[in-house]
Amino acid sequence: MRAVAIIGIGQTKVDEHWDKSLRELTGEAVLAAVQDSGIDQIEALYVGNMMSGSANHQQQLGAYIADWVGLRYAEAAKIESACSSGAAAFRAALLAISSGAIESAVAVGVEKMTDSPGPEITADLATAADADWEQDQGVSFVALNALIMRRYMYEYGWQKNDFAPFSMNAHANAVHNPFARFRKAITEKQYLEAGMVADPINLMDASAIGDGSAAVVMVPLDKLNMDSPIPIIKVIGSAGATDSIAIHDRKDPLWLKAAEISSKKAYSQAGIGPQDIDVFELHDAFSIMAALSLEASGFAERGKGPTLGLNGSILPSGKIPIATRGGLKARGHPVGATGLYQLVEIVEQLRGTAIGTQVENARIGMAQNIGGSGSNIYTHILERVNR
Amino acid sequence: MRAVAIIGIGQTKVDEHWDKSLRELTGEAVLAAVQDSGIDQIEALYVGNMMSGSANHQQQLGAYIADWVGLRYAEAAKIESACSSGAAAFRAALLAISSGAIESAVAVGVEKMTDSPGPEITADLATAADADWEQDQGVSFVALNALIMRRYMYEYGWQKNDFAPFSMNAHANAVHNPFARFRKAITEKQYLEAGMVADPINLMDASAIGDGSAAVVMVPLDKLNMDSPIPIIKVIGSAGATDSIAIHDRKDPLWLKAAEISSKKAYSQAGIGPQDIDVFELHDAFSIMAALSLEASGFAERGKGPTLGLNGSILPSGKIPIATRGGLKARGHPVGATGLYQLVEIVEQLRGTAIGTQVENARIGMAQNIGGSGSNIYTHILERVNR
Repeated sequence: MRAVAIIGIGQTKVDEHWDKSLRELTGEAVLAAVQDSGIDQIEALYVGNMMSGSANHQQQLGAYIADWVGLRYAEAAKIESACSSGAAAFRAALLAISSGAIESAVAVGVEKMTDSPGPEITADLATAADADWEQDQGVSFVALNALIMRRYMYEYGWQKNDFAPFSMNAHANAVHNPFARFRKAITEKQYLEAGMVADPINLMDASAIGDGSAAVVMVPLDKLNMDSPIPIIKVIGSAGATDSIAIHDRKDPLWLKAAEISSKKAYSQAGIGPQDIDVFELHDAFSIMAALSLEASGFAERGKGPTLGLNGSILPSGKIPIATRGGLKARGHPVGATGLYQLVEIVEQLRGTAIGTQVENARIGMAQNIGGSGSNIYTHILERVNR
Repeated sequence: MRAVAIIGIGQTKVDEHWDKSLRELTGEAVLAAVQDSGIDQIEALYVGNMMSGSANHQQQLGAYIADWVGLRYAEAAKIESACSSGAAAFRAALLAISSGAIESAVAVGVEKMTDSPGPEITADLATAADADWEQDQGVSFVALNALIMRRYMYEYGWQKNDFAPFSMNAHANAVHNPFARFRKAITEKQYLEAGMVADPINLMDASAIGDGSAAVVMVPLDKLNMDSPIPIIKVIGSAGATDSIAIHDRKDPLWLKAAEISSKKAYSQAGIGPQDIDVFELHDAFSIMAALSLEASGFAERGKGPTLGLNGSILPSGKIPIATRGGLKARGHPVGATGLYQLVEIVEQLRGTAIGTQVENARIGMAQNIGGSGSNIYTHILERVNR
């Protein structure tokens, strides 16, 4: 396989962007990434998005965005795998370049959710669950995660406050990220007293929806001058795996099998293990998902995920820093864009430009993007190769 | 690039499948293709679909279908580019195998439309048009094509009856295809007297929506025994190109620029020209699209598309047979599945199993799948290589 590098990144602030159309929002991220890359020719565009058909009454975002950013006639398509649509689009771009079919691509994720009324977005989000076996029972996406968290606390004996560090770390880090939606730190007291959404998940366990877009520019590694002073970020691991959508249908609802499979494949491709990862952008859509992701990816033993929060390992100065730019919790979770925000943030860390939350000597970073309640998970590992 | 072959095909009848769920319908095509391929290991699944999020309240069809067909844990994603989603999913699978990342894949297209009320589906289909510049004017998808056809007739002097052969050929061929929705021939009188939908497009110019699924199994060519008596179908050309979604924004609304670009690229990869194509499954969503596709792909001069209908060239016995299994018009047009029906039908022709409408000595076939009103077009060329 031909090796691929990321040479440009761009992102918008996650916010309520009522003054921007879907194309304006996406264009902002794409054009920022292209400008950052320094190249002026892009052959293909891959858009990660989940719900533009319903929330924005617009499908075929491939052609839609390509035209808007000056790439009319270029190859373009939209990739969807619920909340992991962003990483899925990144992988599509990666494989297209790896195959030799194209020489340059933009992968962009976007979701514009706040134009729609709340109940409509809740129903849209529920389409990531199983229509026959979950939605029809009236269970929302938060409720599904609440069932998992409740069972996890019961099985492994954790208390509500044991999850506080995940949220506190995310919020503390977001203070330094100009693109984050919530730029304020929270205390444990604020965490514990936040309004309940679906017991035991409260407002401080749940990531917020929002409008946002993030993008990267990718080219074959062999096209780059490795002596360049400009940081070159190589993709050294990439894998996707699925699981049943309905949680009740899994052998173990407390284990993210698709995270285990995709991370093991990515480690194997990179020739490394979890101990080599300097920074990890994981999918903390809910606090419980942060714990499960850490466990399935080999950073904590089964049932021990919260320990890494309690002992400070997840802080930017810790052993395995997570949510270093705010994570889904505080940077925000514009569904189809999230996977690309994670990758953009890993690039920031490997470039050494993660102001305020820079992980010292970060050389290898990992991003893991979860679709549904663990039903489609992509793991990517990036390395800075010219320093 | 590593060469890729199609070794299995499967399809359901296009119909109103009220007795089958979305997963049952898709599973039927996937499992038929896997059985036909004779292999028992599939690494990845790519689903082409446009509107399951709204019409079936189900997103992430990658994981959804993978689990149903026994591929839980496999890599899977959905690809969307409106009516060309099927070919886009095929190309994603092709590039994934070409890259060396995976060794076997299923590309499947599906759309289940008839559960939804008519006005809802019309609105869903309109999301393939530009939300800001077309939908908001109240124009439906048929109306957009009617505007193109009216202008075409005016510019080039064609009459309504000059388009009759496209519909008559499609319906005559569908009689022999057990998977086609409308298996009856029509006369020119029936064509001319059909109810008007959006002047000048009547019911016999417009393809029908429907429920359907079609799938192919793909593997690297070098894994196959070329001395095998089983037909081996190689992908010798593959390209996608976009155009503006809004028709008024194109320099020439009567020219499918994205068809021209993608077909030229595909011809170039294959080292052939239009004169070498033995059979062409084109995207006759409306009669006018058949004419425009023939012109942009090099089979007719600009403005001369209908000539190929009038002089019999498009018949199975003609110079450039089209819609040989009924086309979108009579086989049916389950949006996200259509691109894969076309590819399945080309494989049937190259295998010599297109009973009733077999093109004699067909060795090279082409499929062209159009998204929107020409805004995202994929062209694929297949060749039978072991005979």
